[in-house]
Amino acid sequence: MASLLNLDEFQLERCLNQDIATDSVALLGTLPVQDGRDLAIVRILKLSSVASQEFSTLINRLEGLNLVESNDIYTWFHGWLARSNAKPDVKIDVIFPATDVHVRKYSAQSVHMVHESIDLYRKIVKPYVDSFPPKRTQWVRNILDGTSESEKLIYSDPGYVLLPDMKWDAETSPLSTLYVVAIAKSVALRSLRDLRGEHIPLLKDIRRTARQYVQGKGLAGSAVRMFIHYQPSYYHFHVHVVNANHFGSLGTIVGQAHLLDDVISLLELDGEIYTKVTLNYGLGDQHALCQPLLEAQLNDDSE
Amino acid sequence: MASLLNLDEFQLERCLNQDIATDSVALLGTLPVQDGRDLAIVRILKLSSVASQEFSTLINRLEGLNLVESNDIYTWFHGWLARSNAKPDVKIDVIFPATDVHVRKYSAQSVHMVHESIDLYRKIVKPYVDSFPPKRTQWVRNILDGTSESEKLIYSDPGYVLLPDMKWDAETSPLSTLYVVAIAKSVALRSLRDLRGEHIPLLKDIRRTARQYVQGKGLAGSAVRMFIHYQPSYYHFHVHVVNANHFGSLGTIVGQAHLLDDVISLLELDGEIYTKVTLNYGLGDQHALCQPLLEAQLNDDSE
Repeated sequence: MASLLNLDEFQLERCLNQDIATDSVALLGTLPVQDGRDLAIVRILKLSSVASQEFSTLINRLEGLNLVESNDIYTWFHGWLARSNAKPDVKIDVIFPATDVHVRKYSAQSVHMVHESIDLYRKIVKPYVDSFPPKRTQWVRNILDGTSESEKLIYSDPGYVLLPDMKWDAETSPLSTLYVVAIAKSVALRSLRDLRGEHIPLLKDIRRTARQYVQGKGLAGSAVRMFIHYQPSYYHFHVHVVNANHFGSLGTIVGQAHLLDDVISLLELDGEIYTKVTLNYGLGDQHALCQPLLEAQLNDDSE
Repeated sequence: MASLLNLDEFQLERCLNQDIATDSVALLGTLPVQDGRDLAIVRILKLSSVASQEFSTLINRLEGLNLVESNDIYTWFHGWLARSNAKPDVKIDVIFPATDVHVRKYSAQSVHMVHESIDLYRKIVKPYVDSFPPKRTQWVRNILDGTSESEKLIYSDPGYVLLPDMKWDAETSPLSTLYVVAIAKSVALRSLRDLRGEHIPLLKDIRRTARQYVQGKGLAGSAVRMFIHYQPSYYHFHVHVVNANHFGSLGTIVGQAHLLDDVISLLELDGEIYTKVTLNYGLGDQHALCQPLLEAQLNDDSE
């Protein structure tokens, strides 16, 4: 029974991943079962302990203080925060029994930068996108046709819907973490590659609606960063809208995210640009497209 | 005397910034001096406490453990790490006496997305770039002509130099944080806006040299993310080269960083593209270009 898990009995095999950005560690090992031991993954994740505190009491909560260095203006200390029963240090996820799928999911992926020419798009990427069974994106069509999450919709018209991302709650989450998504209704629009000059009005509509929404929340219209992922995690064209001050979101990295404004600017120069231009992006080595693209571009990498 | 600073006597005025991404807080207040009190800034920054630990002892260092939730596969706990005298929880920077410049530097900046058409580049951005006195970038010219940092150079030819960024040490820093910079020697090349089709060979040279360097370090050539900032922090054209797995670096955000590969792809389509295309980016509201650009584009924002 999971509720009886005793971490003391965890036998470590190896570290799957150690990630400074999220201050987390994923460990692979075993835990006892009736007839032996089974694979278990223990993930230990640091909880935010400074930025989430009441700042007015933060200094009073310092227990120890060691002077590190000092000059006429700057002084550095190392400090220890008083232990709080209400505020844990870490969150621990245990997956038990763990399968190979879990092990792969929590393993460090090595990211490779790949170049998708229009030729490689046709040969490798488009067949991959076409091969997805429709049931994988049934949840998106349920949102688009109003079968699910209709109470969450911020805006809907024949072209697209705007709704909060599942990582953000419009009622309770702070505006600093604002995250909404616009999803196009056309099933023909699957990714950045499908955009043409004719889609500029749709993209500008999305931009205007998103700006109006955040203005209604008290932010400036210029205070949001809107971007498109390529490759995306699902092949229904969608635009991410986040607070421009929110640097913590990993999905905004160049080589994965394309600024909506840049996409509009490029389409205004050349409405057919995404039928010609090479798109470059980072892929984890477990992504189905990674090895085929790396192999196909071995020659042009010597450039 | 800074070394006698007693944080107990810090009187809080207000919070300048609270940043979840870096888990830090910057507080403005006062500390006593002989004839009264002076402004002081106290910045409290969480030290990494999970990812930087020896993972083999991490589970043994858990003191408390509270079950949060459990199902047949997943179990979540909250945990407390044993206190270590060797490992402080936080780093504390005190700036005292603090000036207005310090207060501005540590205040939260509100980021706005701006659109720089070629017209606004000529009217607003180019005069701003031209107005920088040469002494502000004397340090770059010292690197380029070999007056300083020559022992650090990884590669040098008439077109550019490659050297470790000051945030990364080639001898002692881990490859996971790899960060090198290529700086073009031509003083006419100041930013992304100055790139033309004729610069494709230079850009490809930089890409090839950087790949060869990381391959010599044991990484794959595809394991680095190369990008150009616009706006950059200094107006000598340069390319950032970081480990593609390194998501912690804030300088890789879309709307500030342009993938070198994308820049090459666009120039190959149209060698004059940066004389035409609107560039879009985020600027802090304290940046000299922010207000002029926001005002100039008030009309096109209603699109």
